[in-house]
Amino acid sequence: MPEIRISPPLSQPPLRPGDSMKPFPDLTRLVAPRSIVIVGASAREGSQGRRLVDNVLVHSGFDGEVYLVNPGSSEILGRPCYPSVADIPARGMDVALVIVNSALVLPALEQCAAKGIRFAIVMTSGFAETGEAGQRNEEAIAALCARTGLRVYGPNCPGLVNLNLHLGMTFSPAFKDDLNSGPIGLATQGGGLGRTVLQTLSFGAGVGLWCSAGNECDLGVPDFIAHMALDPQISVIATLMEGIKDGGRLRRALILAHEHSKPVVVLKIGHSAQGVLAAQSHTASIAGSAQVNSAVFRQHGAVEVQDLDELAAVARLLVKPRPAAGAGLAIFTFSGGTAALAADIAGAANLPLATFAPQTTAALKQLLPAFANIVNPLDTTVDIIRDPALVIRCLRIVCEDPNIGAVMFPIPMDYADITATMADAICEVAAAQSKPIVPVWMTRRMGTGFQSMEHAGLLPFLSLADCVTALRRLWPASSAVPATIAPHKRATPPSTHTPEVLSETQAKHLLRAANIAVPEGGIAHDPDAAARLARAVGYPVAMKIVSAQIPHKTEAGGVRLNLTDEKAVRLAYQDILDTVTRRQPDARIDGVLVEKMLPEGGREILIGVHRDAAFGLILTVGLGGVFVEILKDVAHRALPLQKQDAHAMLRELKGFAMLESVRGRPSADLTALEDMLLRVSDFAEAHAPRLRELDINPVWVGNEDQGAIALDALIVLDH
Amino acid sequence: MPEIRISPPLSQPPLRPGDSMKPFPDLTRLVAPRSIVIVGASAREGSQGRRLVDNVLVHSGFDGEVYLVNPGSSEILGRPCYPSVADIPARGMDVALVIVNSALVLPALEQCAAKGIRFAIVMTSGFAETGEAGQRNEEAIAALCARTGLRVYGPNCPGLVNLNLHLGMTFSPAFKDDLNSGPIGLATQGGGLGRTVLQTLSFGAGVGLWCSAGNECDLGVPDFIAHMALDPQISVIATLMEGIKDGGRLRRALILAHEHSKPVVVLKIGHSAQGVLAAQSHTASIAGSAQVNSAVFRQHGAVEVQDLDELAAVARLLVKPRPAAGAGLAIFTFSGGTAALAADIAGAANLPLATFAPQTTAALKQLLPAFANIVNPLDTTVDIIRDPALVIRCLRIVCEDPNIGAVMFPIPMDYADITATMADAICEVAAAQSKPIVPVWMTRRMGTGFQSMEHAGLLPFLSLADCVTALRRLWPASSAVPATIAPHKRATPPSTHTPEVLSETQAKHLLRAANIAVPEGGIAHDPDAAARLARAVGYPVAMKIVSAQIPHKTEAGGVRLNLTDEKAVRLAYQDILDTVTRRQPDARIDGVLVEKMLPEGGREILIGVHRDAAFGLILTVGLGGVFVEILKDVAHRALPLQKQDAHAMLRELKGFAMLESVRGRPSADLTALEDMLLRVSDFAEAHAPRLRELDINPVWVGNEDQGAIALDALIVLDH
Repeated sequence: MPEIRISPPLSQPPLRPGDSMKPFPDLTRLVAPRSIVIVGASAREGSQGRRLVDNVLVHSGFDGEVYLVNPGSSEILGRPCYPSVADIPARGMDVALVIVNSALVLPALEQCAAKGIRFAIVMTSGFAETGEAGQRNEEAIAALCARTGLRVYGPNCPGLVNLNLHLGMTFSPAFKDDLNSGPIGLATQGGGLGRTVLQTLSFGAGVGLWCSAGNECDLGVPDFIAHMALDPQISVIATLMEGIKDGGRLRRALILAHEHSKPVVVLKIGHSAQGVLAAQSHTASIAGSAQVNSAVFRQHGAVEVQDLDELAAVARLLVKPRPAAGAGLAIFTFSGGTAALAADIAGAANLPLATFAPQTTAALKQLLPAFANIVNPLDTTVDIIRDPALVIRCLRIVCEDPNIGAVMFPIPMDYADITATMADAICEVAAAQSKPIVPVWMTRRMGTGFQSMEHAGLLPFLSLADCVTALRRLWPASSAVPATIAPHKRATPPSTHTPEVLSETQAKHLLRAANIAVPEGGIAHDPDAAARLARAVGYPVAMKIVSAQIPHKTEAGGVRLNLTDEKAVRLAYQDILDTVTRRQPDARIDGVLVEKMLPEGGREILIGVHRDAAFGLILTVGLGGVFVEILKDVAHRALPLQKQDAHAMLRELKGFAMLESVRGRPSADLTALEDMLLRVSDFAEAHAPRLRELDINPVWVGNEDQGAIALDALIVLDH
Repeated sequence: MPEIRISPPLSQPPLRPGDSMKPFPDLTRLVAPRSIVIVGASAREGSQGRRLVDNVLVHSGFDGEVYLVNPGSSEILGRPCYPSVADIPARGMDVALVIVNSALVLPALEQCAAKGIRFAIVMTSGFAETGEAGQRNEEAIAALCARTGLRVYGPNCPGLVNLNLHLGMTFSPAFKDDLNSGPIGLATQGGGLGRTVLQTLSFGAGVGLWCSAGNECDLGVPDFIAHMALDPQISVIATLMEGIKDGGRLRRALILAHEHSKPVVVLKIGHSAQGVLAAQSHTASIAGSAQVNSAVFRQHGAVEVQDLDELAAVARLLVKPRPAAGAGLAIFTFSGGTAALAADIAGAANLPLATFAPQTTAALKQLLPAFANIVNPLDTTVDIIRDPALVIRCLRIVCEDPNIGAVMFPIPMDYADITATMADAICEVAAAQSKPIVPVWMTRRMGTGFQSMEHAGLLPFLSLADCVTALRRLWPASSAVPATIAPHKRATPPSTHTPEVLSETQAKHLLRAANIAVPEGGIAHDPDAAARLARAVGYPVAMKIVSAQIPHKTEAGGVRLNLTDEKAVRLAYQDILDTVTRRQPDARIDGVLVEKMLPEGGREILIGVHRDAAFGLILTVGLGGVFVEILKDVAHRALPLQKQDAHAMLRELKGFAMLESVRGRPSADLTALEDMLLRVSDFAEAHAPRLRELDINPVWVGNEDQGAIALDALIVLDH
């Protein structure tokens, strides 16, 4: 049970600039070594060193070279034991497993590097998770890696388990009990809960490779995902993360997995934590890092789940092909009440129920009693369950329907032999089908029928709602295409220097240069100039004070709207200056902005960019007014944005209907708005090194073909 | 397996006027009979009649009189058998169990009535569920009940099972396998899924009484809930409903249960069905009956759940006292990763996590390793699980903390003996605790530890998320006090006559008479009168066309707002008449309404009343604009409304923050708005026999102390 000793590393180590963009290392010889050194090997029963030796030499099917190191023994279990790594009469071994006292880890790693060993798995704990001294010790390991090229996995980890090779480089006594293998790759941080996934997938397609690098001082989850993306034995990747150390690197790994058609299922702890809030930015304050994390996972096509059993179940479901576009779910059962309840729960979750193809209905009609209603959900009536051959034929017919992407088979209660026979029939069909057949064993009386489906690897769900939640993940929420453009550079943490707040005019000048439309107009320094500008852009106009010291112009009395003639403009000029000077006598005034007013009836949109601690620059979009203020209705994407992101993120908004044609009002100019999102992305990327915050609020979006214009803008740069 | 033969009755029989208000019958002798007649008793192995005889005579512990009836046998299993009920040499028996051919049911019931038998349980199917002929047959049974006083349970049902008396009046061969009993009363319609609940609650506090009256031609779910509310052996009521035949009667039963402090847990199928939509009413079209059902359950303090396993789990949890006001959840585990995940899932579901009382922290500090962090979620670290005495002491300390209402104990994986010992420790503490201790067995390897908790009746959850979902039901969503005023009369179905649409003036006249504030003003028939009225109410004024043929006044050009002087009023009068007459030359014009404009800055609210097919008059409230139109953000209550309903329903709105102080704007006059909701309830109740639809849209709600005024109103009456 040692894995559960390992608590997740809660403190985030400082980011190491430049890591995001480093190429992913080739981990082939880490996960499939030809030679292993065990540093801290022991013969003492019950010690971690002994369990490690037992796992590698006794419980694994490993036939490569194994070297044991322990200064206190000359042999262990009949094998020679060397006093130190330096004493081993060989060089260039693939992996060293290190389980010595934390004070001895660094010297051992130095010797590993000197011996040309490629990888070290450091299981020892007592590093960053214990406080400052441990943190320094861990930084020394990272420095050694950088200096020597040795790659370290750990410290404070349970080791690495390659079940497809039947190799356990771990001190866990449970290794020998969880030897199922399969196409699922599992990447965790703290190791404990990974064991739960292994146990849950004990039968059928299981976990073939489990990487859990604890404190991740060198190698981490993105490296393992990247490895699994290329590993031909892995077809689905599951990951459980407590923290994200390097969001840019994680995104690159997700993109790689997507490019190699390996679905990634993510369970990320932190949905109720307040998360990292950036600056005083309005968009940042409603972002919260959990929402940003979810947005980025979605952006890159990863499937996010909310619980551990769901992680295992969804990973398992994704081993089979996802439902084809347009295909729906079939519900197959023998009880009317169950059919109604299952369809109700599926419907409430917006899981699409298929309509049977005509040939399906016709074929079922031949087989089922006259009083059975041939619709989806299909209630075969109870007669069928006494005839397994009939269950098999009907179930096959449903599976072969092109309209069907998956079949849910709820079994409401245990009827001993009868349900056992039916379960065998389900197993028989499922074994020959590429479409998932998902049984739901709705009773807690887990009799023979349950057991035989479990042992056949069908992973029967124990609740309709859980089944529906998991199945829902197979159907994409929208037609969004995962983003495949990698971030250009790693996330830079916000600078601690005093930020520079640009004036509205400066900000709009920068936006205009980036081809982001701003209203026509200019700055006036006297009433005559104001009148000239107004005449040039055409009435009506708006006038606003220009001063970097006055971010809240309306509150300072610095805004006049809808001015329709020269007289009004002249009066407004004087009035603005008088009011602002009275209220904020110390503010430096740079003039008064005169701008053309836009036609009434435009929609107000907010576009923001802020810097997330994990993923760097994040773009946020929302509808103005109550949607953002009361309902926090916003969508996020990490930069750079792709065309499909701009399209999809607007459609994620609860209030998207406001942008469509409403009550006879024409649709908003969505093309112009999506275009502006992309331009803002380009702009923010171009200014990435200094950009701290960008708020365009509001953006005026006209009706179709009227365009989108940034009415006000706030830009905060780092010095 | 006979229950699963019974498909839920999908067709709703016609409502029988007056039933809602009839007193609930005393069912004592139905559920605990002293004498039983079996009509259709049989000796033939495998027949339903034989299984029924076996269940009553062999598998039950029934020691009352049993009379067997079958014209084809003179004795069955050594007991005398009578050719007909009339031939039985006794009178006034408590219950007849009827399982004869459907054509023979009515004559048998006639004889039962003649014999003075009180109750008949008709298990035979082939009635309303099969079509029109069966429907007529069933109506004949209902007529017989009304004529003779015989009370009928069924037809098309699996019978009635009183497990607390060890009595199975059912033909189910599974009866003898599900003999756990307990304080949970279960009321279902179709019987199949009730068996799943019995199986799921096989250990510990189980189902003591299961009523499942199939087609409910006479007795139904409300009668059983009412019985269970008074039954001293039942402390929690669980119900699974496919349809609601008599919403008024159901409400009275829920009120009775609440008065007797019996929690009611409801699983109602129909969340994704479109439901019954009333008329063309705007509020009805966004109500949908599933939403109305949920609102009514909440209104009466019933706990609604979404799945069958949740029904069983929540009923079980409610056997123990609900958490005290202010108490929170404790999470107790031995793995850091698990503590984080469990707390994260609980937090995301807004399940309140308690803060340990100082004495708890101090006591745990004495017992736990120095590196254990004494906070909630509590990670005892793994050392503790090898010492069961220590687990027991720590768990007791946590349970005794007054801040704690329930304890969740997640066990992430199966470690054979170690987790088995820990499970025993949990069972020991749980047995002596009144607070619920809820284990979560997170792995599918359901080893000894799982089994011993299951057999001890702890009902371990198999997923954190499911546990959190169920626990969340124990904490009330708001401070709402369940409503205890019964509906005054039963729901009348909408009339099929042509409705009468009142003009705005007529509608406002009625509202004013009911003390619902409407703007000052009156109807003008010429410009002079309009000017006089405007002067009398004070400028600015609004003017609107008055015509029952013009429900959409704005679209017809019949509205002018913000008129500030006499000239504007005179012009507007003529302009309105000209425009409306041009656009709708056939409309009968009753004049022009001149009303005082209300100050700007009021909130717009919509209040509606419509008639729901199950629950009769339903009041709906929502915020105007996008909240109703885009977000369907409304709250419902069945009438009559109580003070606490008016308070609670506003706070259920997603947009409630709009009514509070927002961005320096003062709070809306919530007192006046709640008062108006109550007056609208009174008004609708008073007009209940004819009221089809009422829409007050918008209601102007001023700032604190400014009141609430109905600006426009639509009333539709049945002729």
